[in-house]
Amino acid sequence: MKSNRKRQDLIHVGRDLIVRQGFNATGLSDILATAGVPKGSFYYYFESKDDFGLAIIDDFANEYQRKLDATISNQQRSPLHRLRQYFELGIQEMEANQYETGCLIGNLAQELAAQNENFRDRLDQILHDWETQFATCVADVYKDADSGDDRRSATELAKFILAGWQGATLRAKTSRSPAPLRNFVHILFTHVLNRPGSAQSIPTESTAG
Amino acid sequence: MKSNRKRQDLIHVGRDLIVRQGFNATGLSDILATAGVPKGSFYYYFESKDDFGLAIIDDFANEYQRKLDATISNQQRSPLHRLRQYFELGIQEMEANQYETGCLIGNLAQELAAQNENFRDRLDQILHDWETQFATCVADVYKDADSGDDRRSATELAKFILAGWQGATLRAKTSRSPAPLRNFVHILFTHVLNRPGSAQSIPTESTAG
Repeated sequence: MKSNRKRQDLIHVGRDLIVRQGFNATGLSDILATAGVPKGSFYYYFESKDDFGLAIIDDFANEYQRKLDATISNQQRSPLHRLRQYFELGIQEMEANQYETGCLIGNLAQELAAQNENFRDRLDQILHDWETQFATCVADVYKDADSGDDRRSATELAKFILAGWQGATLRAKTSRSPAPLRNFVHILFTHVLNRPGSAQSIPTESTAG
Repeated sequence: MKSNRKRQDLIHVGRDLIVRQGFNATGLSDILATAGVPKGSFYYYFESKDDFGLAIIDDFANEYQRKLDATISNQQRSPLHRLRQYFELGIQEMEANQYETGCLIGNLAQELAAQNENFRDRLDQILHDWETQFATCVADVYKDADSGDDRRSATELAKFILAGWQGATLRAKTSRSPAPLRNFVHILFTHVLNRPGSAQSIPTESTAG
C-alpha cells in the first residue's frame, strides 16, 4: 500500500465530504479541489473512486477502534461504566457536529449496501467486529450480575444495542437533537440492563463520560 | 394539488429508483426515461426535484399509514400482538425485496437530514407521528400488564423501539439477512417487554404475522 501524507490528506478530505454529502453525490473533482491535488496524483494513490471509498472506510475503522479501546473494551472500568462512556462519547461527538454527520459506517451502509457488494461486505465485517467487542462487554455485565446468561445471549443483546444505537443516531440527525440518543441510553439502562446486582452500579448522568 | 394518473406514475417510478439509489444519485432524466414522461410534463406536476421528493415522501407516508392501521393501531388485537404483527410484516417486506431497499423514510433521513431542511423537517414530522402511534400501543401493553408505567414512559419506550427497528433494518440491509430483524424482535419481547402479566401473552413465532 502506497502511504504518505498526501494520501492521508485525500482520505481525510474525502471522508469529511462523503460523511456529509454521501458517496455518490461527492464528485472526485470536489475532493481534488478541496485537497488541492491533481487528478494524476489521485490515481497514483487509488485505483478508482471505489478503491478510495474502501480506504476511507478502513481509515475510519482504525480510528474508531481507538475509541472502542478507550471505552467499551477498557478492562480498567466496570462493563456498565464502559457502555455509558461509549454512549456519552458518541453524544458529545454528535453535539460537536450539530447532529449533521452521524456515523460514517451507518451512512455508507444505508447508501451503498444494495449497490456495491464490495462496500456492503466491508461494512458488514466492521459492524460484526464492533458487535463482537460489545458482546464481550455485555458478557461482563452478565458475569458481574451473576445472571446466568451466557455468551450467546450476550451476543444477541450486543447486536440489539448496536443496531439500536445506529437507529438512535439516525433519529438524532433527523431531529437535530440529542434527545433520541439520551432516550436510548435511558431505556437501555433502565429497561434492558436493569438486572439484579447490576442496576445499582450504573453511573449517573453527572459522573459519566 | 394537480392530481392524476401520470403524476402518480411519476411518484411511483421515482420512489422505486430513489429507495434503491438515493435521492441525489437519481437523476431526473432517469426518472423521466423510466416513466416515459417528457420533461415538460414533469414540471407541470412538480415545481422542482425537491418538490417531487416531498411528494414521494407524502405518498409513502400515506401508504405506510394503512400498514400501521392494520397492525400497530389495530384495536381489535392485543397490543403485544399488534407489535408482533408490525414487525412480522416488516420482515416479510424486507425478505421480498431481498434486504435491498430498507425503509424509504430512514434512507432519506440518513441521506438528506443534514443537507435539506425541508426534507429533514418533513421526515422528522413523519417519524414523530409514527412514534405517537407506537406510544399508544406501548401504553396499552402497560395497561394490560397493570404495570403502573405512565404515558410518558410509554412514549420513551416507543421512541426506543422505533429507532431500534430502523437500526435493525439498516443492519439487515448490510448483512443481507433477516437475522438482525429477528434478533431485534426476540430481544424486545424477552428483555424489554417481559413484564409481569404481559410476557405470557406474547404470540409465538409460529402464530404471528
